[in-house]
Amino acid sequence: MTVFDLKTWMQPHLASVESALSQGIRADSPAALGEAMRYAVLDGGKRLRPLLVLATAQAVGDGVGGAAALRAACAVELIHAYSLVHDDMPCMDNDVLRRGKPTVHVQFGQAQALLAGDALQSLAFEILTPPNTSVSADVQAACVALLARASGYQGMAGGQAIDLASVGLRLTENQLREMHRLKTGALLLCSVQMGAACVMGVPEAVQQALTRFGAALGLAFQVVDDVLDVTADSALLGKTAGKDEAADKPTYVALMGLDGAKRYADALTTEAMQALTDTGLPDARLGPLRALAAMVVERNN
Amino acid sequence: MTVFDLKTWMQPHLASVESALSQGIRADSPAALGEAMRYAVLDGGKRLRPLLVLATAQAVGDGVGGAAALRAACAVELIHAYSLVHDDMPCMDNDVLRRGKPTVHVQFGQAQALLAGDALQSLAFEILTPPNTSVSADVQAACVALLARASGYQGMAGGQAIDLASVGLRLTENQLREMHRLKTGALLLCSVQMGAACVMGVPEAVQQALTRFGAALGLAFQVVDDVLDVTADSALLGKTAGKDEAADKPTYVALMGLDGAKRYADALTTEAMQALTDTGLPDARLGPLRALAAMVVERNN
Repeated sequence: MTVFDLKTWMQPHLASVESALSQGIRADSPAALGEAMRYAVLDGGKRLRPLLVLATAQAVGDGVGGAAALRAACAVELIHAYSLVHDDMPCMDNDVLRRGKPTVHVQFGQAQALLAGDALQSLAFEILTPPNTSVSADVQAACVALLARASGYQGMAGGQAIDLASVGLRLTENQLREMHRLKTGALLLCSVQMGAACVMGVPEAVQQALTRFGAALGLAFQVVDDVLDVTADSALLGKTAGKDEAADKPTYVALMGLDGAKRYADALTTEAMQALTDTGLPDARLGPLRALAAMVVERNN
Repeated sequence: MTVFDLKTWMQPHLASVESALSQGIRADSPAALGEAMRYAVLDGGKRLRPLLVLATAQAVGDGVGGAAALRAACAVELIHAYSLVHDDMPCMDNDVLRRGKPTVHVQFGQAQALLAGDALQSLAFEILTPPNTSVSADVQAACVALLARASGYQGMAGGQAIDLASVGLRLTENQLREMHRLKTGALLLCSVQMGAACVMGVPEAVQQALTRFGAALGLAFQVVDDVLDVTADSALLGKTAGKDEAADKPTYVALMGLDGAKRYADALTTEAMQALTDTGLPDARLGPLRALAAMVVERNN
C-alpha cells in the first residue's frame, strides 16, 4: 500500500468547506448575530467532521459526492460549532479560551452566545435543504434525519447531559463509553453516515462496515482527547488543558491510567481500520479515511 | 356564513398534537434530559402554531394533511418551546414564571435548561424526517427548509438578537415591525406555510395569499401581546405581566398608545381575513383559519 498524502488531499476540501461556511453566514445580519456566528465557526478548528463526510462520500462514490456532500460537511461543522459555543458558557463548562481565542460569550456576551449557538443549529438544517438545488429530496431528508438524531437528546445533547450529571462520580467503563458514544461519538459517526447517504445505492453491508468504522473512530477520538487533556499544554491545545481533572470529570485516563488509555486508543484505531477493510471498497478509495483515522490518534491538539 | 365552532374543531386536533408530542419525547432519556424537555413542552401552551399548521393543511387539502401535517404541527411547537426555554434564562429575559409554572432553568438548573432547549430544536427536525414513513421526501425536505429558515438568524433568532440590542432604545414603527416580523412573525407564518407544503400541488396564487395571511396574523399576534402585557395580570397571562415596560423594551403600546395599538391589531386582523378571502378557497374550508385568527385578537392571555 502506498502512503497516502493526506495534506495534499485535504487542502482543496478544506478550502471548499471554509468558503461554503463563510458564504453561508451573512455578516450583515440582524444585530450582529451573524458576526458572532462567523466568529464561532470561521478560521479555527481542524474540520475533522467535514473531512470525514467528504472522505466517506469519496470512498463510496466516484467523486466526493458533489453539492450534497459539501452541504453535509458544512452542516455537521455548524452543529459542532454550536455545541462548543453553548458548552463554553458559564452555566456549562465556563471556559474562556477556545481555538486560541476568547470564547463567544466572552467576546459577545452570554445572551448573544446563546442565540448564536441556537442560530448555528438552525443553519445546519437550512444548509441541508437548499432551494432550487441539484441535491435530491431523498438525500436532503436522509441527511437531516441523521444529523437531527445525532445532535439531539438521544445523541450529542444527551451525552452532554450525562457529562453534567457525572461530575464527581466514578463511572464504570460501560457508563463512560455510553456517555462518549453520545457526546462526541454520535456526531463523528454521523459524519461518516451522511457521507454515505450523499451517494445513492450504497450496499447495506458497506454502510454497516462504515458505521462500525465511525463508531470506533468516535470513541478513539475521545480517548485521545482525555489523554491530551493530561499531556498537552493549553497553548498547543488551543483550549484550557487539565480542566477535566480540575473539574473532577470521569475520563479514560482516570479509569485506565495514561498508558492504558493510550493502548486503548491504539486498539480502537486498529478496529476502525479493520472495519474499513471490511467495507470491501478498493484500497485506493479508502486512503483519505485511513489517513484521517490515523490523524485522530496521532494528533497533538 | 354560519358561525364556525372552533372549540369542537380544535378538540381532536389538540389531543392528537398532545399525544404525538408526548410520544415523541421519551422520559427515560439520558440524565433526565427528556424529563426537562417534557416539562417544557407538555401540558401548557395554547398550541396556536400547531393548530395553524393543521387548519392550513385542511384549507388547501381534503383532510388535515395526514401524518405530514401532524409532524409539522409538532415540529413548530418544539421550536416555539425551545425558544421560550432559552428566552427565560437569566442571561436573556431572566423570567421565573411561564405558563403558570416555574421556568425550566428554575426547575432543572441552567445547564439542563440550555441542553433541553438545544435538544428540543434538534427534535423538531428529527420529527420532520421520520424513518419508514408515508410522508414523501419532498414534503419532508420542504418542511425542514421552511422551519430552519424561520427559526434561524434570518428568522426568530435574528429577531431575538434585535430585541436584545433594542432595550432602552426608541425604535421607529418600521424597526419595531421588522423585529417582530422575525422574532414572533416568522414562526407563525412558517406554520401556515408548512401546512400548505404538506399538501402537494397547491397553486402559487393560493400560497401567496396564505403567506399574506400568515404575515398579517403574525404581526397582529405581537401587537396583542404588547397590549396584554399592559392590561392583563400575571395570573391570567401565566407569565410575568408588565415586564416589557419594566425592562424598558420598545412595544406597540409605547409607540402608539394603548388605544392605537388595539386599533392596529384590529386592522391587521381585517387584512388577514381579506387575504383568506383572496385565496379563493371555499368558505367552508377556511372556517378554522378564520376562527383562529379571530382568537388571536380576542384572546386575554
